[in-house]
Order: sequence, then C-alpha cells, then structure tokens
Amino acid sequence: MTATPSSSSQHAGRAWVFGDDLTSEVLAPGRYMKFSIEEIAKHCLESVEPRFAAEVRPGDVVVGGRNFGAGSSREQAAEVLRHLDISAVVARSFAGLFYRNAFNLGLPLLVCAEAGSIRAGDVLDVDAESGRIDNRTQRRAIACEPVPAHLMALIRDGGLLGHLEKRLKKA
Amino acid sequence: MTATPSSSSQHAGRAWVFGDDLTSEVLAPGRYMKFSIEEIAKHCLESVEPRFAAEVRPGDVVVGGRNFGAGSSREQAAEVLRHLDISAVVARSFAGLFYRNAFNLGLPLLVCAEAGSIRAGDVLDVDAESGRIDNRTQRRAIACEPVPAHLMALIRDGGLLGHLEKRLKKA
Repeated sequence: MTATPSSSSQHAGRAWVFGDDLTSEVLAPGRYMKFSIEEIAKHCLESVEPRFAAEVRPGDVVVGGRNFGAGSSREQAAEVLRHLDISAVVARSFAGLFYRNAFNLGLPLLVCAEAGSIRAGDVLDVDAESGRIDNRTQRRAIACEPVPAHLMALIRDGGLLGHLEKRLKKA
Repeated sequence: MTATPSSSSQHAGRAWVFGDDLTSEVLAPGRYMKFSIEEIAKHCLESVEPRFAAEVRPGDVVVGGRNFGAGSSREQAAEVLRHLDISAVVARSFAGLFYRNAFNLGLPLLVCAEAGSIRAGDVLDVDAESGRIDNRTQRRAIACEPVPAHLMALIRDGGLLGHLEKRLKKA
C-alpha cells in the first residue's frame, strides 16, 4: 500500500471529483491526527464521500475545484493521498501550503482551468510533466499547466527527502 | 536595495492593494526576463500600477485577492518583491507555485480571509508568525492564518538556500 516513486510522469486512473475549497481537515480529519498515517487514511474525505477510502484504487486521480487543500498546514493532508496511492490531484487551484507539502512528499498536483469538465469515474491518463490529461471516457484532451522540471525531479525521487539524499550523495 | 533577512517576524509598512488572479506575468513581465533582477523589478506591476516600482518603500506590504501569483513558475515573480524590500504579501489565497517560490526566496506570504478589508495606503503592522495584522489606519486587527514554524525558519534564514547552509553547517 505504500506509494512508490514513479519512474514515469504518466498515470492512468479513475477520477474522484470534489468541489471548491476542499480542506486539509476533510483530507486528514483532526480527530485522527494522533494515530498512524494508515489510520488517518481510512478517514480521508469521509465527511464528503464515505466510500472513498475503502474504494479508491492505486493510480486513481483526485479532482478538485478552486483552493484545494485549504486550511491547516498539516502534512498528513497530502500524505494520506500518497498513502492511498493516488497518482495525482488535478484542480483549478491549490492552497499554497498544500501545494508545498504535496510536492515535498512526492505527490504531483496539476493546476487545470478545465478541471470542472471531469466527471466522477472518468478514466484519465495524466501526464504531469507535459500537463496533458487524456480523458478516455469522454475522449477529450485537457490541457493543464505543466509541472516545472524542478518539481518533477522531486516527484521522481519520491519527494524532497529522497531528492536531497540523491543530491547529497552526488556531491 | 537588497533585501536582508529579517530578525523578527514583525513589519510595518504601507499597503499596495491589488485584485484577484494577479499573475506572475504582471509581477515579472516576460519581456524583461533576459535582464537582471534589478531591471525586472523596475517593471514589477507596471501594467496595473505604473507608480509601484518607483514609489514603493522598503517594508511596504502588497495585498491581493484570490489566487495571487497565478500563471508561470518563474521565480522572478517573488524575487522582484524581495528585491523591492516588500515585507510581506497578504492575500485571500496564493497560487501554489508562487507560494513555494516565495518562501524559498525568503518572502513571507499571509493567507488572509479578510484581506479585502485593507485599503491602499493603510499602514499595517504585520506579524507573519502569529498571523496578526494591525491596521493602524483603520484601527482594526485582522486575523490571518499563522505562517507555520518551519516556513518562518526559512524566512529568518533569508530563504531555502540560507536555511540549508545553516542546517548543513550544524550537521
């Protein structure tokens, strides 16, 4: 169940679709913060989609609206999505702290003006590096903002810690 | 004119107020990207406020609406504000890449639901660590989201590079 660093920037998965201002509290509910990430992950998004944690499959994609990940700075909000093997989050915009934490933990986020066109259950091919999503279900290509190369390097190394280890070994 | 790392998280300055979706292109116009940061800074925000670069004073505060810093990943968008000695940017929300770049470069950002209450020229005491702004002009306190301790450490060390240098020296 542990997310492994991806060797490619391409992923295919089913879409789970949520609305604007989805908070870090909804991703990682405060009352479980004292437990392990495994336990917190079981309650990820349960207040808006009780089936999510049980039914999500490795490679699935979380889709949001504006200001995804708003609220507290807790890293677990991104960590649970990594733990559940979510391949990417696609949203109109992200809260700054969530954006920072997610890449540091190796979870790719795509800023996408057309995120609203994606429907629950659509099968998506996501290429974070080019910012291209192929919506196989709708037979439609969606252009997102490409993830900059320096952040793709973090993703490939499984997050900031892996990236720094690799850089320091080279030095 | 070079921004120096601040020893405290408190700053006072005049507010420069802008709207929603202020882009990195407006902060650091693409046609000046080949020039030095000094040159780019002269054109910071000129398309929406031609007086800005010439009249901004060290310690002044930039205030925005939603999705501040949207668009390209260019680091210069945050770097010009540091170069102009802006003490903080206060906005309803920030674009993820801008948020990441700004803290890495030592520029504090405050997420503030009440940013819209601030008017151009208001004198503000900004305390990034506690997330408290005293609007001296309006005699009103504004509660923003506190900047997390690990990001305040970046700010105190003048950005990510200074922070890593300090950490590696200790190790």
